[in-house]
Amino acid sequence: MCIVGGTGALGFGLALRLGRAGVPVVIGSRDQGRAEEAARHAAEQLPGAAFSGFQNEAAVREADIIILSVPFRNQAENLANLHKALSDGQLLADATVPLAAAFGGKATRTLGVWQGSAAQQAREMTPDGVRVVSAFHTVNARTLSDLDHVLDEDVLICGDSREDKAQLAELIERIDGLRPVDCGPLEMARIVEQLTALIISINARHKARAGIKITGL
Amino acid sequence: MCIVGGTGALGFGLALRLGRAGVPVVIGSRDQGRAEEAARHAAEQLPGAAFSGFQNEAAVREADIIILSVPFRNQAENLANLHKALSDGQLLADATVPLAAAFGGKATRTLGVWQGSAAQQAREMTPDGVRVVSAFHTVNARTLSDLDHVLDEDVLICGDSREDKAQLAELIERIDGLRPVDCGPLEMARIVEQLTALIISINARHKARAGIKITGL
Repeated sequence: MCIVGGTGALGFGLALRLGRAGVPVVIGSRDQGRAEEAARHAAEQLPGAAFSGFQNEAAVREADIIILSVPFRNQAENLANLHKALSDGQLLADATVPLAAAFGGKATRTLGVWQGSAAQQAREMTPDGVRVVSAFHTVNARTLSDLDHVLDEDVLICGDSREDKAQLAELIERIDGLRPVDCGPLEMARIVEQLTALIISINARHKARAGIKITGL
Repeated sequence: MCIVGGTGALGFGLALRLGRAGVPVVIGSRDQGRAEEAARHAAEQLPGAAFSGFQNEAAVREADIIILSVPFRNQAENLANLHKALSDGQLLADATVPLAAAFGGKATRTLGVWQGSAAQQAREMTPDGVRVVSAFHTVNARTLSDLDHVLDEDVLICGDSREDKAQLAELIERIDGLRPVDCGPLEMARIVEQLTALIISINARHKARAGIKITGL
């Protein structure tokens, strides 16, 4: 699997957790050098794990699952650049959040995306054979990166195919303390993406690193 | 305290839980007879508790806290009718959710409200001295009404004044198993109101009665 934007805070945190779970992780970045550096940095923390670093287009080529973890203002550019590198059957898990902070607004507010959500924009911008799901909007980058922190929260997944969501869920379940929850079709990403802004608001008020758990399942 | 729309599923569930906690509850309805009937029905289940039933305008007059629990398509009408009955210093907790189902759409989708959220519409439509907060969007009506069910979830509160939110939080804390969480200013209701639609989608997929809990607080 591969993380596009794996040098960013969320991407790197996911890389560490997946690497520790025994998943070989390819860290992608716009810059080959930075990708290699992040892979080295991850390997130093987890000597037994398998990390490698490549420029994004090269990083995605062999991946079964690709997590897209980039700031909203770079999402469209990244997807355009990846268009030729992606191939039929790959699963793209979009983690993009259209925070108003992307363009100087508040991190507790979001932008309207014409397609409904960043995930739906991702679906529009990827080749037809690539399957798109949405996830990872409520997990905290710093909590993930702090490997001593015991996780106990949910990852909300949206997508139009149960099989696609199940494939991502299987990957998520390898991380101790994360439970995948199927939230319905990809259009529900309109709501789930907003939760990042809500959590940022809660964190500011409670000096916390909040996450979300669905009760009653 | 008083629940406008206390004969509805969510309102009645909240009435039962608050009544059991020892809070005297005034159940309001458009129809005096239906309000009285709901109060009788509640008292049958909880003989020690204090329930009364009144037509909405009469119900709110003596209330310190008013929970507005009506379908979105009736919210504006209810607020217009209550305008003269509400008075300075009262706290109105809006629980309205602008589900698309209000006008024949899906319950997993929401309507755009010009003011940003139903709660912000409530603030616009109430007299100046009335304080407006937003809450109760993620609690399940049937779970509340089933008094044997042990609750263990959060109530997300939005509002522009910490004191107002603290006053509502105190009421919520009287119900066993409900934890109030301050989510920030009233505008965050734009996001929290959407959670009802998300939970309906989760419930449909998992045959559950889901709620939400914020982790890491």
